Amino acid sequence: MDIFGKQFIDGKREASSGITFVACDAVSGETLPHKISTATEAEVRSAAEAAARAYPVYRKTGLEERAGFLEAIAKEIDSLDDSFISMVMAETGLLEARVRGERARTSNQLRLFAAVVRRGDFLGARIDSALPQREPLPRPDIRQYRIGLGPVAVFGAGNFPLAFSVAGGDTASALAAGCPVIVKAHSGHPVTSELVGQAIVRAVETCRMPSGVFGMLFGDNSGEPLVLAREIKAIAFTGSLRGGRALNEIAARRPEPIPMFAEMSSINPVIVLPGALKERSQAIATGVAASVTLGAGQFCTNPGLIIGFSGDLFEHFCQQLGEEMGKRDPSVMLNRTILTNYQDGVTRMAQISGVELLASGPSDLDRAQTCLFRASATLLKKTGHPLEAEVFGPATVVVALKDLQELLDLAPRLNGHLTASVFAGSADAESCGPLVDALEPRVGRIILNDYPTGVEVCDAMVHGGPYPASSDSRFTSVGSLSIDRFLRPVCYQGYPDSMLPSALQDKNPLGIRRLVNGCWTSDPICGVQLAENR
Amino acid sequence: MDIFGKQFIDGKREASSGITFVACDAVSGETLPHKISTATEAEVRSAAEAAARAYPVYRKTGLEERAGFLEAIAKEIDSLDDSFISMVMAETGLLEARVRGERARTSNQLRLFAAVVRRGDFLGARIDSALPQREPLPRPDIRQYRIGLGPVAVFGAGNFPLAFSVAGGDTASALAAGCPVIVKAHSGHPVTSELVGQAIVRAVETCRMPSGVFGMLFGDNSGEPLVLAREIKAIAFTGSLRGGRALNEIAARRPEPIPMFAEMSSINPVIVLPGALKERSQAIATGVAASVTLGAGQFCTNPGLIIGFSGDLFEHFCQQLGEEMGKRDPSVMLNRTILTNYQDGVTRMAQISGVELLASGPSDLDRAQTCLFRASATLLKKTGHPLEAEVFGPATVVVALKDLQELLDLAPRLNGHLTASVFAGSADAESCGPLVDALEPRVGRIILNDYPTGVEVCDAMVHGGPYPASSDSRFTSVGSLSIDRFLRPVCYQGYPDSMLPSALQDKNPLGIRRLVNGCWTSDPICGVQLAENR
Repeated sequence: MDIFGKQFIDGKREASSGITFVACDAVSGETLPHKISTATEAEVRSAAEAAARAYPVYRKTGLEERAGFLEAIAKEIDSLDDSFISMVMAETGLLEARVRGERARTSNQLRLFAAVVRRGDFLGARIDSALPQREPLPRPDIRQYRIGLGPVAVFGAGNFPLAFSVAGGDTASALAAGCPVIVKAHSGHPVTSELVGQAIVRAVETCRMPSGVFGMLFGDNSGEPLVLAREIKAIAFTGSLRGGRALNEIAARRPEPIPMFAEMSSINPVIVLPGALKERSQAIATGVAASVTLGAGQFCTNPGLIIGFSGDLFEHFCQQLGEEMGKRDPSVMLNRTILTNYQDGVTRMAQISGVELLASGPSDLDRAQTCLFRASATLLKKTGHPLEAEVFGPATVVVALKDLQELLDLAPRLNGHLTASVFAGSADAESCGPLVDALEPRVGRIILNDYPTGVEVCDAMVHGGPYPASSDSRFTSVGSLSIDRFLRPVCYQGYPDSMLPSALQDKNPLGIRRLVNGCWTSDPICGVQLAENR
Repeated sequence: MDIFGKQFIDGKREASSGITFVACDAVSGETLPHKISTATEAEVRSAAEAAARAYPVYRKTGLEERAGFLEAIAKEIDSLDDSFISMVMAETGLLEARVRGERARTSNQLRLFAAVVRRGDFLGARIDSALPQREPLPRPDIRQYRIGLGPVAVFGAGNFPLAFSVAGGDTASALAAGCPVIVKAHSGHPVTSELVGQAIVRAVETCRMPSGVFGMLFGDNSGEPLVLAREIKAIAFTGSLRGGRALNEIAARRPEPIPMFAEMSSINPVIVLPGALKERSQAIATGVAASVTLGAGQFCTNPGLIIGFSGDLFEHFCQQLGEEMGKRDPSVMLNRTILTNYQDGVTRMAQISGVELLASGPSDLDRAQTCLFRASATLLKKTGHPLEAEVFGPATVVVALKDLQELLDLAPRLNGHLTASVFAGSADAESCGPLVDALEPRVGRIILNDYPTGVEVCDAMVHGGPYPASSDSRFTSVGSLSIDRFLRPVCYQGYPDSMLPSALQDKNPLGIRRLVNGCWTSDPICGVQLAENR
């Protein structure tokens, strides 16, 4: 296991700043032996220029070739040995089963995008044949498909050192779209990043991809010049609201504005309806506590707000939830900063007027103590959303509203969230319809009788939502639709078949689904019959 | 023809500011008799609140019902009588044939979106069935579709008083997406706007749509409060770069950022290759001159930059183009401000060092004089893109580059544009491939041997492009794909069939095309076979 701690630029490793930083062991807080060089502005520029040189070559790779490249990365990641697993555990404090599970998720995600590339529907091929006889004016032949935007800057998350980091969903979807990627490595797990970066480079070499298709930069000062680099054409970010907004302000200074997708902050409200509590109050309390404390509560889908309706059932549930939360051991956090932020967050929460601490688990100065708060309903309606500020860690807040109507009135004023979950029993059937209608406009995913943690990577997943859950609710950062962030349509007018990209040629050599004169089909086009018959 | 000159709010007409403005006759510059009230901030808020009340009802309309509404608007617009046509001509100076043609385009565009709604693919339905036996964890049932974002603010263009205005493409696509619309009426054609607004209201009443589904506000002071209104969830703008940027800065002050699509500035480079000039130099010169002066050059797709390669062929072409441009009569502009801006623009252009006036048409103080400039190639490479600043009107610039290689080197540094056109002859076959590859990343539409003016409204059209052509190159404002600007994905996890939206139910009652367990199909789902077989 060779750790160089240098930038990944155009297939080479560079370190010219002379400034280094170190990684820390998450459990002990002690420094690890590896020194990581921070990137200079010149190195950022080199990486961006290499990506720009790679773009014209990489975007023209065939579907099979590109899918094979994604699978080669997946294979390299699956082949990383036990010392890699140990390193991820050391840098992040995550347990072995979690790290192994997350690695499988990461390589499966790459394979999902290989399947998306082969399916070819991401190309969005649309053809309107010429109508030379049309009155008053003939229609020219117009054909549209989608191309990758260009080099993408990826700012990975600290809480998923594999699945949302160097070879995570953002990288996988950008590469699938035909975009070179430059990762700003998260400073919380630089050695993990280095090892995954090496795995990607091996796949680049095996597949003979252009060397600039992947780059990686270390050091938090590299973020700003990367976002400002002229060659960068899109930004993907996963992290805090503060971090996302800061990056967005930097991006706003660019002469050429570019798309930025930031997945930032969500407290994922959970609604427990009376019928559900009547049937299985204890089970839901256990489940909610497990979801709140899973992975030390360090998930973007962590449920940070539990809403019920005033009455004995909900009082009883809150007591059960308090007992469950109180039983949970304190947790190792990803790093000291996150631990401190969590401790500050729960202190701030406790000081809000109208909030009381209902229960807490055993305390430990070096670990995060579970906390259950109770807040008055009026706080939910307050401008500034004090209860909707994310406290990243194993804490949550219960709120009792008067009834369904109060919740329906409140829903449109909720912040945007990644998810909302509803627990309903057989007596709640009538409440569910109006509740779903009220919640749907405020979230990306609505869950029935299940917990928000656990984000399936599939075609139908939405991991996004209105601000501040994401910076643009029209996109998702998990699931195959996330490729849409990095694609844009281009159309060809009046081009002969031989000059068109293969996705748009009459005989449909890629065999993909296309919208031809208003009908979806995988068939080739024979003459102009279709158009004339329209 | 009753002209009230009041705001359109929740199906009523209101005017409380006491401040009015007037429209002007574009040809004579004299004021028209109608007084138009400017909206107050309270009126803007009322309109936004009415739209928010309409949203939950309107977004739930069935596909057939929504398509019928769009067709009803189309019918009302087609039924507007000759006094309407005369009014549009008076307010804009456009000729009768153009106005009638643009009306047909507007109503056909509404009908295209009715077809899109019926086709149902805009719903983007994706289904991943539950895999209860999967190891290590079962997969829940996850189903995704797309919903309208919420109320949309539309800022129409002055140069297309019908097709890009009150009932234009932005309104049609937003209504098709299930979003209520509030139009900020363009102050250049307020009476036209009023009459089209009345037509929409008649359709709202006939189809029994919620009254807040359409609103309209007059007066340029209404723009800022409209963009800031909490209820507004997306913005569509067509106009100048300055206007688009100003609106974007206002939008950036919102507590909840929302998507904004602005189509702003493009000079639509036209490349004339030597082979084409050898074959038909005069025809291309005539065609370019016609395209530059069409509609007094007031098109976003107006060709403002003609690039050729140094040599006798291009010199001869420039001379022919000069003769053609010199023959063209001066044109009535949409209004005095646009005329003054044009006159300032050509004066500024003539003063740039390295630019000379090559030819101009007859002059007339009240009309726009055609101008052909010639600029040195070095200006094209200058930062700040002095040659790529849009001069809105019947002017264009020719530039001679050394050869294809110089153009290929230059292309990545070009501004973003809506279109690029290439004129090629049989001797240019080898140049075309590299040229298309170089231009494609900088534009939304690439045209071979045709002129950029004339934007077909169809499934395959792209009217967008990298900044400053648009604020987000991933979208288009013309063609059926423009609906994507106003849709976002939402997914349902673990919901029983009866509680799902009909787009996602097993039996596929809408008969739409869906991505079911990785395969596109319009078939209903029978049990879990598909998922298990995956």
